[in-house]
Amino acid sequence: MPTLRLALSQVNPSVGDLAGNADLVRSWTRQAADAGAQLVLFPEMMLTGYPVEDLVFRRSFVAASRAALERLAADLAADGLGEVPVVVGYLDADGPPQVSGDAEPGHGARNAAALLHGGAVVARYFKHHLPNYGVFDEDRYFIPGDTLTVVRIAGVDVALTICEDLWQAGGPFAAAREAGVGLVVNINGSPYELNKDDIRLPLVRRRAAEANATIAYVNMIGGQDELVFEGDSMIVSADGELLTRAPQFVEHLLVHDVDLPAATEPPAAETAAGMRVVRGALDGVPPTPSGPAAVGGLIEPVADEAEVWQALVLGLRDYVNKNRFPSVVLGLSGGIDSAVVAALAVDALGGDRVVGVSLPSQHSSEHSREDAADLAKRTGLDYRVEPIQPMVDAFLANLSLSGVAVENLQARVRGVILMALSNQEGHLVLTTGNKSELAVGYSTLYGDSVGGFNPIKDVWKTLVWRLAKWRNTDAARRGETPPIPENSIGKPPSAELSPGQLDSDSLPDYDVLDPILIGYVDGDLGRDGLVESGHDPAVVDKVLRLVDTAEYKRRQSAPGTKISMKAFGRDRRLPITNRWREKG
Amino acid sequence: MPTLRLALSQVNPSVGDLAGNADLVRSWTRQAADAGAQLVLFPEMMLTGYPVEDLVFRRSFVAASRAALERLAADLAADGLGEVPVVVGYLDADGPPQVSGDAEPGHGARNAAALLHGGAVVARYFKHHLPNYGVFDEDRYFIPGDTLTVVRIAGVDVALTICEDLWQAGGPFAAAREAGVGLVVNINGSPYELNKDDIRLPLVRRRAAEANATIAYVNMIGGQDELVFEGDSMIVSADGELLTRAPQFVEHLLVHDVDLPAATEPPAAETAAGMRVVRGALDGVPPTPSGPAAVGGLIEPVADEAEVWQALVLGLRDYVNKNRFPSVVLGLSGGIDSAVVAALAVDALGGDRVVGVSLPSQHSSEHSREDAADLAKRTGLDYRVEPIQPMVDAFLANLSLSGVAVENLQARVRGVILMALSNQEGHLVLTTGNKSELAVGYSTLYGDSVGGFNPIKDVWKTLVWRLAKWRNTDAARRGETPPIPENSIGKPPSAELSPGQLDSDSLPDYDVLDPILIGYVDGDLGRDGLVESGHDPAVVDKVLRLVDTAEYKRRQSAPGTKISMKAFGRDRRLPITNRWREKG
Repeated sequence: MPTLRLALSQVNPSVGDLAGNADLVRSWTRQAADAGAQLVLFPEMMLTGYPVEDLVFRRSFVAASRAALERLAADLAADGLGEVPVVVGYLDADGPPQVSGDAEPGHGARNAAALLHGGAVVARYFKHHLPNYGVFDEDRYFIPGDTLTVVRIAGVDVALTICEDLWQAGGPFAAAREAGVGLVVNINGSPYELNKDDIRLPLVRRRAAEANATIAYVNMIGGQDELVFEGDSMIVSADGELLTRAPQFVEHLLVHDVDLPAATEPPAAETAAGMRVVRGALDGVPPTPSGPAAVGGLIEPVADEAEVWQALVLGLRDYVNKNRFPSVVLGLSGGIDSAVVAALAVDALGGDRVVGVSLPSQHSSEHSREDAADLAKRTGLDYRVEPIQPMVDAFLANLSLSGVAVENLQARVRGVILMALSNQEGHLVLTTGNKSELAVGYSTLYGDSVGGFNPIKDVWKTLVWRLAKWRNTDAARRGETPPIPENSIGKPPSAELSPGQLDSDSLPDYDVLDPILIGYVDGDLGRDGLVESGHDPAVVDKVLRLVDTAEYKRRQSAPGTKISMKAFGRDRRLPITNRWREKG
Repeated sequence: MPTLRLALSQVNPSVGDLAGNADLVRSWTRQAADAGAQLVLFPEMMLTGYPVEDLVFRRSFVAASRAALERLAADLAADGLGEVPVVVGYLDADGPPQVSGDAEPGHGARNAAALLHGGAVVARYFKHHLPNYGVFDEDRYFIPGDTLTVVRIAGVDVALTICEDLWQAGGPFAAAREAGVGLVVNINGSPYELNKDDIRLPLVRRRAAEANATIAYVNMIGGQDELVFEGDSMIVSADGELLTRAPQFVEHLLVHDVDLPAATEPPAAETAAGMRVVRGALDGVPPTPSGPAAVGGLIEPVADEAEVWQALVLGLRDYVNKNRFPSVVLGLSGGIDSAVVAALAVDALGGDRVVGVSLPSQHSSEHSREDAADLAKRTGLDYRVEPIQPMVDAFLANLSLSGVAVENLQARVRGVILMALSNQEGHLVLTTGNKSELAVGYSTLYGDSVGGFNPIKDVWKTLVWRLAKWRNTDAARRGETPPIPENSIGKPPSAELSPGQLDSDSLPDYDVLDPILIGYVDGDLGRDGLVESGHDPAVVDKVLRLVDTAEYKRRQSAPGTKISMKAFGRDRRLPITNRWREKG
């Protein structure tokens, strides 16, 4: 039985940075070769980053991806790495891509994987199952492949597959079984969702059984706008054993020796499970690894709060760094939301790249200012105080305003100050609205919604509190200063835009509100379904009215990191103009 | 040869308003019946409005659509209209819709047409070709139908089809030919694009030839967020003759008598062009219309500027009215963009529902204020003046700002004032950035980009000028006051945020800029393609740099009416975090 040393390169590519991504492949292949790897795997769309969305429609971009692939193969050989087979994802197309002005048929783009060896592209595979749900639109972009690519490497038949191919039964994994392969490579750009790792392992096991083959699953890490990729790369044997598994949210080279069945002569049939089978073979790959056996680790699962915290930190860090912002600025109210965002930002960027501004008004309580200052001291961020009353008074003196208009004015003056600091000093403004308040519209358009990125836009308020407590406890466990003031965690939430104002004046308590919102927004339950779940009908009706009429406000919120399947924003696309109301 | 009196109901449904849309069907069927119609046709997704986007995933919404259809059939009968066959679009599903948490397979939703007669739903058809390009995502929502529905009405075999079925060869129209039908009904929710009417007629003719049948094409009108539907309903005979054609952008009942071939006994084959054929027949529809012949009109095409103006007026009017805003407010700078938006708003809503606010700063020229006042006088809008200097000074006294931060501050103070008026008085704020300045990022985030709807977000600057000239000339032709001051049209564009500032200090002249932008944005041309088209390479590089780095700003712009295929916003979806740059 041959043994193959696999190297799964769990790296962090950047969308559009073809040269930088190719350099990543070269340096990680160097490390893998140094570790004696016989096959090196990189994620889906490694060369272009993922998802590239409508860049697919630019012929110049598709041409650049194809040229970068050829050049990478040559560069690897020039690096002395030509003898190491490398699998890399990229954007391809059938012939020169054609974009018609109208129905855009036949642009022929492919979500592709290439096998590089000896300075050349020696095999290609085109993704068969295209996801078109949730955050995915791949039917818009790609033509599905219908050919299974099988390459004999060091005496083992290896099939190439891409991401969604794993999530649907039939197709390439069934074909791989009929084709008698020993190893299925699955390269991924699989976005993080809460607890998706718990779904992924059983899924890989099912496919291993379906293919009767070992599966090498490699996923990218990193943030891309609202998406964050978690890694969680792994190898699972044909009988379902988890051989090795990489940590989440960090770059990692997972090197592991795998015993695999020797390839026999292929059956006569060149079609399997409805797919054409194309076979090839690589010369010169040694049949066994040299030196001591390589054994990858097995990562233990972590608590939900730890997982979410890491996802939010990575999503924020990459949004800031990949967009080349030197630093961030946010308003510190002394409340829990801005405290958690500040702590996330310091974890992501370091205290010297985070500016926190206290923006007190006449309605700001003394403890709010103290809690903001306390947070600054705990986290080491750059702290400033800019009282807003002089500017608020200038508006009030020149306009006849009352009620909500006056409340919102204060939030908008804060937004103007933060944007002025952004223009003057170059910071990205962070927004701090949680998912609960965004859902019910409890925020000010062009006020606290001002900013380029919202790290907690997909975090329900009750989870914000849980994250804060987890982060403090984890700090204490490690003997560090808990970053978030206990006062900010314990006090009743308030917008402090009018005297004595509390969130509970306008909204149900969050432990009542959040379960209803989760059912309505994440669960797509209707009014009747929510009532059947045991919620008070009057409260359900009130909450649904708030959500339905807040639709317009949601469209104005900044992008942020997605941590669950049903975030506001890209993966639930709702009409703004919409008279549908769940009836009581 | 039988004669059928067709009534094409070119109406304006509202998304989510099932009861209101059903009422529309009842009242228009009443009018059609009074005109002696033997078959009444309503648009695609008439009952739900179109597009409903992710409302499809709510079981309660799908159930409501199906219930509304049954009830509509009964209500028509109760109205005494049960003997008139009515075709109406709605949302259906196979069995109870299932929404899984993950891949969302098998929710089974259908984009459907129903034939109502005798108080019941007597036939259904499910859309076969699903569009998934440009603004369309129907692969995300619907399962394609594979059955052609043919119903014998007054001795004529009539096939039902929906929208995209017309835009692709093969499928239902080929099947209709094999099935020997005399009339193909095609119901539409077909969004407006510039000059789409010039494409549509030849297309209908090709399908009439393909089906060897007369085609009755009915399309909705109205605005829905960024889309506007134009109507342009028509009947084309099997030999390609345009028999009658409705006007664009207005509700219209198009009634016309059509001679159609008598149905013969169907061929044995119950499959045609790969589709199953299901046949039915209606009893009791008279074989010929009664009374004098009905002849629909033939609309003459209008100039591009007239067409665009009507599209923008309708899109704005429906956004305001369907969202139940009492009025709109906008800032009037004296420049061409705000003048055109004000004129559009007055045309859409009347002068008494439009508030125009002059917001002069120390950099505003005297002529700017005069031009704004002149515009107000010409259009009859509610005119106010709110100098911004006191508020700007309050910020400058408390913050250390310079350069662009000071320029942007002025635009943001204006945004705060407009939003305060919105909160205080209930107006929707209109934004006035044209597509050219949005494309290159020549605007202030949370400044002039503040607002709920931007009527000209998809209008290039050079087209803004053409629209202004056309509107003034058209007014003069009708003996009315031209709404837009000649000064606003003739003077060089300026943001007036610093002394003597002109757009041409920062940007190429718009007659140079716009053709490059049109090639890059609308045409998806790369840098090389633009240079090959004859543009100066240095200017191309400058413009592409501006567009690529303005990507983030575009994401912040308000929705507005789409007039071409490649607007910013929904139909070009680009990553924010993106390092791809066209190279010079």
